[in-house]
Amino acid sequence: MEEAKEPSKSALKKAEKAAKMAQAKADKAAKAAKSATVAIVGGKKTDDIIGITVSKADHFAQWYQEVVLKAEMIDYYNEIAGFYILRPPAMYVWNVIRKWFQARIEAMGVEETSFPMFLSSKSLEKEKDHVEGFAPELAWVTKAGDKDLEVPVAVRPTSEAVMYPYYAKWIRSHRDLPFRLNQWNSVVRWEAKQTTPFLRAREFLWQEGHTAHLTEALAGEEVLAILELYAGVYEQLLAVPVVRGRKTENEKFAGGYYTTTVEGYIPSNGRGIQGATSHCLGQNFSKMFDITVEDPQQRGQHLHVWQNSWGLSTRVIGVMVMVHGDDKGLVLPPRIAKIQAILIPVGLTAKMTADEKAAHVARCDDLVAQIQAAGVRAEVDVREGYTPAWKFNDWELKGVPLRLEFGPKDAAQDVISYARRDTGDKGTVPLADLAAQIPALLETIQQAMYDKADTAFREHRLVLTDWSKVVPALDAKNVVLIPHCLDGVCEDRIKDLTKSDEVVEGPDGQKAPSMGMKSLCIPFEQPKEPIVKGVTKCLSPECNRDAGSWVMFGRSY
Amino acid sequence: MEEAKEPSKSALKKAEKAAKMAQAKADKAAKAAKSATVAIVGGKKTDDIIGITVSKADHFAQWYQEVVLKAEMIDYYNEIAGFYILRPPAMYVWNVIRKWFQARIEAMGVEETSFPMFLSSKSLEKEKDHVEGFAPELAWVTKAGDKDLEVPVAVRPTSEAVMYPYYAKWIRSHRDLPFRLNQWNSVVRWEAKQTTPFLRAREFLWQEGHTAHLTEALAGEEVLAILELYAGVYEQLLAVPVVRGRKTENEKFAGGYYTTTVEGYIPSNGRGIQGATSHCLGQNFSKMFDITVEDPQQRGQHLHVWQNSWGLSTRVIGVMVMVHGDDKGLVLPPRIAKIQAILIPVGLTAKMTADEKAAHVARCDDLVAQIQAAGVRAEVDVREGYTPAWKFNDWELKGVPLRLEFGPKDAAQDVISYARRDTGDKGTVPLADLAAQIPALLETIQQAMYDKADTAFREHRLVLTDWSKVVPALDAKNVVLIPHCLDGVCEDRIKDLTKSDEVVEGPDGQKAPSMGMKSLCIPFEQPKEPIVKGVTKCLSPECNRDAGSWVMFGRSY
Repeated sequence: MEEAKEPSKSALKKAEKAAKMAQAKADKAAKAAKSATVAIVGGKKTDDIIGITVSKADHFAQWYQEVVLKAEMIDYYNEIAGFYILRPPAMYVWNVIRKWFQARIEAMGVEETSFPMFLSSKSLEKEKDHVEGFAPELAWVTKAGDKDLEVPVAVRPTSEAVMYPYYAKWIRSHRDLPFRLNQWNSVVRWEAKQTTPFLRAREFLWQEGHTAHLTEALAGEEVLAILELYAGVYEQLLAVPVVRGRKTENEKFAGGYYTTTVEGYIPSNGRGIQGATSHCLGQNFSKMFDITVEDPQQRGQHLHVWQNSWGLSTRVIGVMVMVHGDDKGLVLPPRIAKIQAILIPVGLTAKMTADEKAAHVARCDDLVAQIQAAGVRAEVDVREGYTPAWKFNDWELKGVPLRLEFGPKDAAQDVISYARRDTGDKGTVPLADLAAQIPALLETIQQAMYDKADTAFREHRLVLTDWSKVVPALDAKNVVLIPHCLDGVCEDRIKDLTKSDEVVEGPDGQKAPSMGMKSLCIPFEQPKEPIVKGVTKCLSPECNRDAGSWVMFGRSY
Repeated sequence: MEEAKEPSKSALKKAEKAAKMAQAKADKAAKAAKSATVAIVGGKKTDDIIGITVSKADHFAQWYQEVVLKAEMIDYYNEIAGFYILRPPAMYVWNVIRKWFQARIEAMGVEETSFPMFLSSKSLEKEKDHVEGFAPELAWVTKAGDKDLEVPVAVRPTSEAVMYPYYAKWIRSHRDLPFRLNQWNSVVRWEAKQTTPFLRAREFLWQEGHTAHLTEALAGEEVLAILELYAGVYEQLLAVPVVRGRKTENEKFAGGYYTTTVEGYIPSNGRGIQGATSHCLGQNFSKMFDITVEDPQQRGQHLHVWQNSWGLSTRVIGVMVMVHGDDKGLVLPPRIAKIQAILIPVGLTAKMTADEKAAHVARCDDLVAQIQAAGVRAEVDVREGYTPAWKFNDWELKGVPLRLEFGPKDAAQDVISYARRDTGDKGTVPLADLAAQIPALLETIQQAMYDKADTAFREHRLVLTDWSKVVPALDAKNVVLIPHCLDGVCEDRIKDLTKSDEVVEGPDGQKAPSMGMKSLCIPFEQPKEPIVKGVTKCLSPECNRDAGSWVMFGRSY
């Protein structure tokens, strides 16, 4: 499996050079972001400026780096470029996703396994397209202690070639089908391209499912069932809308039969981003690795099994941050927030006695206990030496969905005050209604965050039938749906034709001429206007073939 | 952290040579075990001999290899020596342990993190003893794609040197203490020694906790709290008794301050086995990595934090298999068994009509549903084409704790018949009592398995004050508690002095003269006979120093 389709070998070399320079620039930007943080954190603690120093609209790349760093989701691994440390707030989100997804694949009958992290070159070379796709990114272990290994081994970039020799051994009868294993692990792809926290790292956490089926139809059903779970992770947990579709031949998994995908959209820069992919491998790998069963219809005849592989990585966290974050920092959807509601005692004045203060804090503890009893992950912030204003900023930076305030004025009115992280809306909840209204408010926030992102995506998914509108649409931060012939060469050519002279901020934070658009997917849900055979032509000005489908194109990560 | 203390450099070279030969022998034995299995599996399926082909008492090493392979807990990774595939039955056990342990450390305030798998040599070299301990086993990545890396990186063998540079950055105040992170991952130690499934693999799954504290006392409390959790994993989940204690200086963690351990015992060969270790690192690492906070007692004064690290690996599964398994295969304690009770329909004769058979199977489904409703992980085996006898063997091989049988005779009496996997005891349970008696029976099995193993360990932990009895005790499969001076040189010498001429089966399955004994731990629970200062001498015949403690010695894994 792979997160994004690799370019061809020749394209790679060119890309590598460009990427090296981009990486150097990105490293510089990252360093700047880091030193800003260190300077801040290193200073006096109380009432430091802890927020984000640039606006999301103007400096998106730097904004992103500051948010993931200052919200303590990641830290840069200075020792080796392109690697990141996932800190507890990121691992919390990942674990919510993991539990949600794990429960659902378990119910489907998928079992857990753990294969070695190393791959022999012999296994890898069995599937030619597959090895070509991954060879440039393999990390090779050549020494153990001070001795050279007789045969070097590579760290897995994905596990098809690690696992399938054993599928050949273990699958002995059609009664063993469907055969479904999944593992949660990390994989290494020594990217030459510029790395970005969560989105493109040289090591990342993911799950990889590998299954075998008797027929193409059965394999295909699972491909879609898994894709729907991936959509669920984005839509139901992360409040991020996605478009479900199929990859073009150019963009499908190396060595696979077809690839389905959920595609996201980053409103700030109008880029598409691949969310997760569920591949049907067809019989390509089963033929190479000799995975057969006796045909239940014809005794004595053997058939090659149909295989799928599917993966979801920590990339999802980066997409969520990019979609929802704002100039104050992270904005977490309630369902994946470790702290859903933070209660901050306010209105404690210097005039109050110690006993009065203690009584107020005790009251806050009691309120939080009530809210927790209603199933909400709530905490009270009783840190001393910080003003309420500083605490507000701190929790906003960290993305806590709901801030609760309780002071003498609230107490007098038997209410608790709140501020929504997503909209800033403020209000009060009667103390008697906490158990009902706080959970409801969190669900309202979850839904509002999804709706906002969904509206943005829908408004920026333009159906175009006029080529001249394509580049302006891209420049206006849209992705586009156009009739396309589905030919790979035409697709490559479109990338060149849509490079723009407009200078914009690239994902590395540097201004550069805009990249061309690539195909994101062939959406399952096609525009209403039909593609008429023999009438609808491919939109590319250099192509006069019939269109095969509406294809979603965009500048992308 | 390390699973077992490494020998000194000079000792290593000698050990490596011996180990290479042992490995070759072990590989041969493993191959024999494997080909035996393949031959069996490859044959006709129904009523094949699927059981273990050697007895646990006579051929322990081969027995173990057959059990883990045939019960489908592991498979050998043929591509690279010393690596194993963990299959679903093993992952199930590991996940039960993971959830149990994770819930408890979360309650202690330990948060989850994920650091990169690679280590720069610069970080590693900061702690001299530490690097010396691990250097011979490091796997070095020297190439990415077809390019040499400018600076090679090692796959982590443990993460102290990966993580602690960031502890220096993140821990800024005594208010950040205790600072506690844990990660679940795999680590690589390219062992020259002979590898064994679960017990010694070149890659293994584990958790590694890394914490920082203000004082030695606070660090020490956590060391013991974690050790007690490790003991809980063995005793409460795996039904394996352990001895809690402290490692001698010779056996402690490389670069640490002191190491606590839970030590197990394998009755079949009388060997001790290290279960899991919880280390206090003292201030050694915090000094090397400059992890300091301001002393809350003395403003302006900085102090180095006290650190712990602690790890529990998939080794636990191997210990469980070795302790409980028998000549029929695996025996799983109910608390960690995926299937706790398997119901096999019996008494279906050729005379019965299809309707009668279907009605009986439906009745079985209903009974299983009742048992499941009582919280038991129960299933019914309705596989066709297999006799009940074949199914009995199959589930015995896989270690299911309780076999249930239901046939017309049972139906006539309103009972279900059962057979305990641990003892073979048979009986019946009235159908009206299933919900109460089946869970109770499983708890009885869990306790009985623990008690049996505990009795074996207690009876083979001999308190000796006569040196001449030591080697005979080891030869009779005991570990021994002897007064010892706690000097490392004396300890090394004891290893030589206790080599025996008796030829026994080594862990590689080959007959060889017995190895000498090494210190397993200084048990917290000391024998009643006191060590009297100035009176009790070290038991070694070549030592006349005062004894410092009773020390548990044994031949070991």
